[in-house]
Amino acid sequence: MAGLYSELGEDDLNQRINRIRIAMANAKLAAFLIPRTDAHRSENVADCDNRLQRMTGFSGSAGLCVMASQCAALFVDGRYKVQAEREVDDAYFQLLELNRKDVADWIIGSIGTGEVGYDPWLHTKSEIEWMQRRLDNSAIKLRPTANLVEQNWHDRPDPPRTTLFEYEEKHAGESSDVKIGRIVDLMRAERAESAVLTLLDSIAWLLNIRASDIPCTPVARAFAIMNLEGIVSVYLELPREIPDPVRNRILFKPQSDFLGDLDTAGKQVLVDPDTAPMQVFLRLDELNVSAIEKPDPCILAKATKNRIEIAAVKAAHRRDGAAVVDFLAWHDSESSQRFVSELDLIAKLEGFRESIDDFRGPAFDTIAATGPNAAIVHYRATPATSRTLSDGDLVLIDSGGQFLGGTTDVTRTIAVGLPEPEQRRCFTLVLKGLIALSRARWPKGRSGLHLDSLARYHLWQAGLDFDHGTGHGVGHFLSVHEGPQGISPRSGCQLLPGMIVSIEPGYYRTGHFGIRLENLAVVQQADPVDGGDERTMLEFKNLTWIPIERALIVPEMLTPEEKDWVDDYHRQTLEQIWDLCAGSTRTWLELACRPLH
Amino acid sequence: MAGLYSELGEDDLNQRINRIRIAMANAKLAAFLIPRTDAHRSENVADCDNRLQRMTGFSGSAGLCVMASQCAALFVDGRYKVQAEREVDDAYFQLLELNRKDVADWIIGSIGTGEVGYDPWLHTKSEIEWMQRRLDNSAIKLRPTANLVEQNWHDRPDPPRTTLFEYEEKHAGESSDVKIGRIVDLMRAERAESAVLTLLDSIAWLLNIRASDIPCTPVARAFAIMNLEGIVSVYLELPREIPDPVRNRILFKPQSDFLGDLDTAGKQVLVDPDTAPMQVFLRLDELNVSAIEKPDPCILAKATKNRIEIAAVKAAHRRDGAAVVDFLAWHDSESSQRFVSELDLIAKLEGFRESIDDFRGPAFDTIAATGPNAAIVHYRATPATSRTLSDGDLVLIDSGGQFLGGTTDVTRTIAVGLPEPEQRRCFTLVLKGLIALSRARWPKGRSGLHLDSLARYHLWQAGLDFDHGTGHGVGHFLSVHEGPQGISPRSGCQLLPGMIVSIEPGYYRTGHFGIRLENLAVVQQADPVDGGDERTMLEFKNLTWIPIERALIVPEMLTPEEKDWVDDYHRQTLEQIWDLCAGSTRTWLELACRPLH
Repeated sequence: MAGLYSELGEDDLNQRINRIRIAMANAKLAAFLIPRTDAHRSENVADCDNRLQRMTGFSGSAGLCVMASQCAALFVDGRYKVQAEREVDDAYFQLLELNRKDVADWIIGSIGTGEVGYDPWLHTKSEIEWMQRRLDNSAIKLRPTANLVEQNWHDRPDPPRTTLFEYEEKHAGESSDVKIGRIVDLMRAERAESAVLTLLDSIAWLLNIRASDIPCTPVARAFAIMNLEGIVSVYLELPREIPDPVRNRILFKPQSDFLGDLDTAGKQVLVDPDTAPMQVFLRLDELNVSAIEKPDPCILAKATKNRIEIAAVKAAHRRDGAAVVDFLAWHDSESSQRFVSELDLIAKLEGFRESIDDFRGPAFDTIAATGPNAAIVHYRATPATSRTLSDGDLVLIDSGGQFLGGTTDVTRTIAVGLPEPEQRRCFTLVLKGLIALSRARWPKGRSGLHLDSLARYHLWQAGLDFDHGTGHGVGHFLSVHEGPQGISPRSGCQLLPGMIVSIEPGYYRTGHFGIRLENLAVVQQADPVDGGDERTMLEFKNLTWIPIERALIVPEMLTPEEKDWVDDYHRQTLEQIWDLCAGSTRTWLELACRPLH
Repeated sequence: MAGLYSELGEDDLNQRINRIRIAMANAKLAAFLIPRTDAHRSENVADCDNRLQRMTGFSGSAGLCVMASQCAALFVDGRYKVQAEREVDDAYFQLLELNRKDVADWIIGSIGTGEVGYDPWLHTKSEIEWMQRRLDNSAIKLRPTANLVEQNWHDRPDPPRTTLFEYEEKHAGESSDVKIGRIVDLMRAERAESAVLTLLDSIAWLLNIRASDIPCTPVARAFAIMNLEGIVSVYLELPREIPDPVRNRILFKPQSDFLGDLDTAGKQVLVDPDTAPMQVFLRLDELNVSAIEKPDPCILAKATKNRIEIAAVKAAHRRDGAAVVDFLAWHDSESSQRFVSELDLIAKLEGFRESIDDFRGPAFDTIAATGPNAAIVHYRATPATSRTLSDGDLVLIDSGGQFLGGTTDVTRTIAVGLPEPEQRRCFTLVLKGLIALSRARWPKGRSGLHLDSLARYHLWQAGLDFDHGTGHGVGHFLSVHEGPQGISPRSGCQLLPGMIVSIEPGYYRTGHFGIRLENLAVVQQADPVDGGDERTMLEFKNLTWIPIERALIVPEMLTPEEKDWVDDYHRQTLEQIWDLCAGSTRTWLELACRPLH
């Protein structure tokens, strides 16, 4: 089907493609790579960095275009298939599944011989090396070049220069000095003289600073070089507003100085081949500096939250939960009127969140999906697709907020009118997965890939499954998707106390309905149980307190332990948020939280 | 404590150690490595290959001695700690946990500088390369040498030359010609001109031959070279009895020709760096032949059993189950007399198995462990340790047989007299793990590491766990421990239809009791369930039919589904083995298999 892209006219598109192909010909390139990400591996990017949308119309958060001289392909992952079909003109772009092996094979099959250009700021060393190895048996070489999309982007938005602000220690739980000291120790252990940081949340975490350069993620677009004296030079777009307390303790330099300053970084520089741009390695090579290729030392330190961060995020979840419950109570009274659309739900929910203390904006674009729309895992409502709720619909609402104190992310699925038995059966199977994982204890040493099956077991027994991970890491007033931990068949990072993850099993019946239940939880050491051994066990401590739709629960499908878990969850929900809810919501909340019969 | 080794007198030991140290000094070696395994990575080894026992007295199936000029260490894994303390004199050997990192660190710490000798037949290329990398920052080098243990082993047993026999196609399910054709296809895909096979079960599987060179595993000690014409040269100790039908279809050569014949193998030789001896690679290097380093191509083909193998092993399990049930019935009547020891149980159980059709010997040394002995995971009864059963004991019996038709391996835990509530609680938690995994369905693509937690979840919730894998692969009238699949936190091999695995959760309370329940099962495609989606799901089809001790089950701890599973398991057990049991056993079996109340 022809693309229904709304923002990009066909003439525009034609011109853009012609221009980049001329630039490719001038540079003697057989193809050019256009990834979605920026130089910082960001999931959300500033408008000036959205080269992929500029060139293809595709607005999703992950994808790669390979522009060849005669043809072009857009690679997106499964969750964006439907959206890409809607946004992208298939007369110009072949739509394919994003998978690095398939990308390489498409290049080999489509261009045969020649050089493929790439912007070394937008690809990691690991990516480029992997791709080159894959192409080694062909007559194709990769070549770093200037970015050919930018060359022809005359109305390119300015880079963001939002105000930097201090993230106070009362929220962060640890001063920047102490964090820097910890990272210096890690650098010494690797015998590094300095470390290059290119991940925006690493820099924000390390320096206890935040900004608004990137949608939904409170960070500044920056690079950093840190030495063993703990001096951190931060390279970012200037001028911008920086309050004195921040300016006085950090050395800010223009972003354009970053590459040049690498020659002051010493002879042994720690830099992460999996996250840092290839450009950094090319420059270090020119300077004859040894790159110590190790993971960004902030990643693991940032992922294991400290006690103050955990206390703050618990409080943020209570406030956030109360706002979502106010919304759910509103929805329950409103849905009898039947003229509520998905876009109405989004606007209303965002309105409830606006008024929360210390709220700093959504953590991601809210998903409200009803009926068959909810079966599309990463569906986003648009005026063209937004459905009006009708009886028998399930409504899936996935949303979260950024707070001074943390980041929230919750999904609830609710019923409009009387749900069908099949919807209730599937919902209860998903709930059993949520319960199994929420209750889990495990001996220290296991990773998300060891626990993932616990959330799927009951669905599997019924011949069902879901095609996304069971959980992702979550930042602290930072990225709502944060590594290195996760819960999926491929999550090999050991789960450690202080890590925050989502637990979000689901079930999606194409053309009919979609179900997802998501709570956040923090990993903690478990108290010993009576009759247990003395080995160290870990467990999840739940953070999200919002009732689970009882109209969708089939109590007979739950074991006594599972029923106890639901009742206990609702009892605690009432305790945690009752006093924070609007007075008019409290009766609704009490009903929603009463024990299962 | 001083070693209680019975077979090796102190004078002997002293002499042996002195002699090897003189040989080391003559060869200018600072240390010499003495692993337990043979040139084929065998778990069980022929007496002539048990260099580790010869040198240290330790008789376990895994271990490594590092003999240095002033000191020596024996590395064994956790399951052999107690046995090694009993068998090995700690005046001569420091006892340490087997772990390749610790081995390397001990070498660095103990010898400082110099060369460490190793027998290149007894270590794989991967092992040696890993160890050399670990030693790279030290002044220590590895050097291949002759085996210094053999040089001073004057009464070394002759290598086994047992009769080779045809493993008929009616049991194997596929002719050797067809298997060879499949492996030739795999070799072509890797552009290999020939393949070197060094694993005994790979050779036995490929050629449909068996022998008795190795205890408990019906294989011949051999190497093989196979070319693209499908001609397989087999190198083994000759002369020996080989029936004409086998002799006529396979080219047998003396084992001493193996290395020399590698020069006829072509210029591209497939050989497995993880299983083949370093010696093969050293020789190929000398010949300037490229080693294509890929897994032994027989491993995966052998692991996925064909329909006839599966049918045959089902039948073998029925016969084996009936014999074990005859034993359990005998035990139930006998245990009232109270003078039965662990060694009596072993002799009696082996006696019941002797009379089974097509029985060809035990698949491993039978474990019978009572009371606190059962808490030692790999306990083996000896006259010194064998306990007489007494009231309140749990008895753990782990045994299996080799049959024309397959290999069995089963563990049951039974009660003597009235069990304590705590024993019943722990048993029921283990049973819940057995049930959860036995009932599991999962979408194709998962590995054992994704399923392992399902067997541990209920124990974990109670603060308990067990320190061994949940399951191992099992061969077909071959090795009872067979890769590549398994069920453990580290089992990364995808589970495929036709793979046989054990499911054997346990619980061990040191000083008190031990529990393990083990069934074998074959992976198969699951039938769709009502209301399920259409994705391909896999499941375990149970093979082992032997009642589960009902006196140890707490029915109130089971969900209705779990109770149904137990009742269904017992109903099927009755169907599968009733007619194969002794007449006097049938009443016992009917009682043992009646539904839970």
